[in-house]
Amino acid sequence: MSDHRQKALEYIQGHKIQSLEKMKEIISIPSVSTDPERAGDIKKAAEWLKRELISLGMTRVEIYPTPRHPIVYAENLSAGKDKPTALIYGHYDVQPEDPIEEWNSDPFTPTQVGEDLFARGATDMKGQIIATFSAIEAIQNTGELPVNVKFLIEGEEEIGGSHLEGFIKDHKEMLACDFFLNPDTGMQAPDLPTITYALRGIAYFELRVQGPKQDMHSGTFGGAIHNPAQVMADLLSGLHDDKGRVTLKGFYDKVLPLSKQEREELSKLPIDEEFYLEQGGVKALWGEEGYSALERTGARPTLEINGLYSGFIGEGQKTVLPAYAMAKVSCRLVPNQDPVEVYEQFTEYLEENAPETVTWELTQMSKEFPSISDRNSKWVQAYVEAAKSAWGKAPIFKREGGSVPVVVHVQHELGVDSVNIGFGLPSDNMHGPNEKIHLPTFYKGIEALVHFFFNLTQ
Amino acid sequence: MSDHRQKALEYIQGHKIQSLEKMKEIISIPSVSTDPERAGDIKKAAEWLKRELISLGMTRVEIYPTPRHPIVYAENLSAGKDKPTALIYGHYDVQPEDPIEEWNSDPFTPTQVGEDLFARGATDMKGQIIATFSAIEAIQNTGELPVNVKFLIEGEEEIGGSHLEGFIKDHKEMLACDFFLNPDTGMQAPDLPTITYALRGIAYFELRVQGPKQDMHSGTFGGAIHNPAQVMADLLSGLHDDKGRVTLKGFYDKVLPLSKQEREELSKLPIDEEFYLEQGGVKALWGEEGYSALERTGARPTLEINGLYSGFIGEGQKTVLPAYAMAKVSCRLVPNQDPVEVYEQFTEYLEENAPETVTWELTQMSKEFPSISDRNSKWVQAYVEAAKSAWGKAPIFKREGGSVPVVVHVQHELGVDSVNIGFGLPSDNMHGPNEKIHLPTFYKGIEALVHFFFNLTQ
Repeated sequence: MSDHRQKALEYIQGHKIQSLEKMKEIISIPSVSTDPERAGDIKKAAEWLKRELISLGMTRVEIYPTPRHPIVYAENLSAGKDKPTALIYGHYDVQPEDPIEEWNSDPFTPTQVGEDLFARGATDMKGQIIATFSAIEAIQNTGELPVNVKFLIEGEEEIGGSHLEGFIKDHKEMLACDFFLNPDTGMQAPDLPTITYALRGIAYFELRVQGPKQDMHSGTFGGAIHNPAQVMADLLSGLHDDKGRVTLKGFYDKVLPLSKQEREELSKLPIDEEFYLEQGGVKALWGEEGYSALERTGARPTLEINGLYSGFIGEGQKTVLPAYAMAKVSCRLVPNQDPVEVYEQFTEYLEENAPETVTWELTQMSKEFPSISDRNSKWVQAYVEAAKSAWGKAPIFKREGGSVPVVVHVQHELGVDSVNIGFGLPSDNMHGPNEKIHLPTFYKGIEALVHFFFNLTQ
Repeated sequence: MSDHRQKALEYIQGHKIQSLEKMKEIISIPSVSTDPERAGDIKKAAEWLKRELISLGMTRVEIYPTPRHPIVYAENLSAGKDKPTALIYGHYDVQPEDPIEEWNSDPFTPTQVGEDLFARGATDMKGQIIATFSAIEAIQNTGELPVNVKFLIEGEEEIGGSHLEGFIKDHKEMLACDFFLNPDTGMQAPDLPTITYALRGIAYFELRVQGPKQDMHSGTFGGAIHNPAQVMADLLSGLHDDKGRVTLKGFYDKVLPLSKQEREELSKLPIDEEFYLEQGGVKALWGEEGYSALERTGARPTLEINGLYSGFIGEGQKTVLPAYAMAKVSCRLVPNQDPVEVYEQFTEYLEENAPETVTWELTQMSKEFPSISDRNSKWVQAYVEAAKSAWGKAPIFKREGGSVPVVVHVQHELGVDSVNIGFGLPSDNMHGPNEKIHLPTFYKGIEALVHFFFNLTQ
């Protein structure tokens, strides 16, 4: 082991408290990108990052405004042209914290319980941003950077219509790199370093079904005026058949079937039905017939209801025939599905199935393509070795059910492949109440990243 | 026409502004019974009524507390034992005002636009209470009351589990009467005085379907953990068949079929499909096959979704697999259906149809029997004549789709029949935003009530 690497690893051990404190600082800023009232917090988070990146020794740090939330860019190219350049991704925005009443502590007051730190954004993904910062800091403060580093940190990952795609398109030269490091995926378990080689795309919709022109008395008009909540239930219910398959016409036409070899590999991963039962706290699983739970969540497309509203939902009772019903519906897509085609399929479904007693409106809120990365690239292999050094075992390769659109955009615009890793765990309650990060895994992650950056030049 | 009757009618004409001002006063108190934070307003409304009833010359006025909202009782028995006794009903509580953003004026600031007065509670039913007060005042202030009068005004009509039933049971002697005047139904049109001879019962439920123990990431777990919003959609969708009939087993078993004669009578009423299309602002109607819209809303039982909630319903998007889904569902019942049996039928339906991937809970929030009154009672006939005097035409007889549980309780406990009338119109937006009362109809109503009270002794 080189002397520099050794010193950097020692530096990490001596600066755990500092890394934790940095994470708490950024987490305490409630940068919820979907909430217009928190635009100020979003700005605050971007400025916090700028200050940190400057003190991290980045030679150029800029905040680029977008029509909504700003993008933070930074670089240190002192390693020189003959060394590889890593473009490191991050997003400093977080999901809304609701349902707030289900949190055991304030979502924006980082609260340590045992080995976990609870807060919105802890795992998704402020913790991972700080892990990359801490790794770079350790290397910088103990010698020269072995590679060129660029940071690209956006504030619109948790919201539809991110401006990052356009920004990448407009700044190809600035963002030029050899590979893309995306630390926004996760690990399967604290002792299972994980590389994600496929990400699902997403088509997110809001469907509104309008019945009567306003709320009406359900006694006087119920039975003659078609209830839009009932129409919504009928329409949503019809979106799956009794085999758990999505009924949209053509939905599966472009889906790349899983190869026999890949199914065999996936079946060997230590992610069984018991894992899903335990994570969900449910008695039985559900899903598309003929596929394992792991295949259903990673390699097959799905359709989920993310939100549902109609009429009176307060305490007590109200005898109302609602004027309208609203549903948020999203499809996770796998190669080679196209989110715009899914919108057309959904529209066709509504045209064929919505009764003439109501009107409806379907809005597509996001449309992101799925992606697959090369498992044998030298960048991926550098992380394989890094994981072996940090955890003492080779990482598993998995498909991820979630979507990281930037991976697709980078592939398309910059022509480079991604290394999708991260230190969040399935039990971290990402997007739900009581989101957390597992601190020992976070510290191990910093260690793995230090190894990774040194491995890149070997 | 008796001299006294003539003077009372003249008194009304001279005191329209006073009647309107009284109505505005009581309407301005936001007595929403389902909102625990408005318990103080409920109390304020009860005390306002007490003061008014005292100044109206009632010889006994009392506020009876209940475990929730108080009941106001008043009487003037000066007409003597050989004269009939009317028990006049009212409720001073109102529906919640939401969705507040759809109101054109503040719900609790009575706002006159043309001939209409807009406010929550205007038509349901503070306006009708003031109409009875104004009629009694006119008669009292121009001579002696021709009949004995008792007022029974509750504060829990718009909420499940009213304490009025128990109160009637416990105060049979005090409430003894010859008939029950219930001014909480309405008129079909401004020129169509209406007597309601049948009211539907109601069984109101809250259904909760619990999926995973907490909100989860829809990308990571969608497709393997059954989405409770989807289960809810499936369950709600299955509650009707493709003929618009409710699928609960045994639901129609006790339904009294409409007689050929009654169907003929109903078909002659000036309430056609056009009326419902216009009220709802919809392109097409819906409902149980084989019945007219009027029959569907009055003489046939129905099942409506009153509210629906799951997951993320705010602005933007959130990729959540919700922990649970909630629906408010109510059935309107016709003779001789039993609301407790409907609860058992719904429970059986859920036991048979809910998948093992979720758990569920069904809560019955109210259970009120349907009722039918004698159309030929002398009390009903007194109103038939009163309507002729006030509007120049005999009233129509109709069934009402809504529920007025007190009519059933009075029939059962006090052994008397009801006269169900009122001066609200179908276009009054009862229970919805922009509730209103049509002032010319309100004034005519006071006139009809004066005639009615004089007719009772003829």
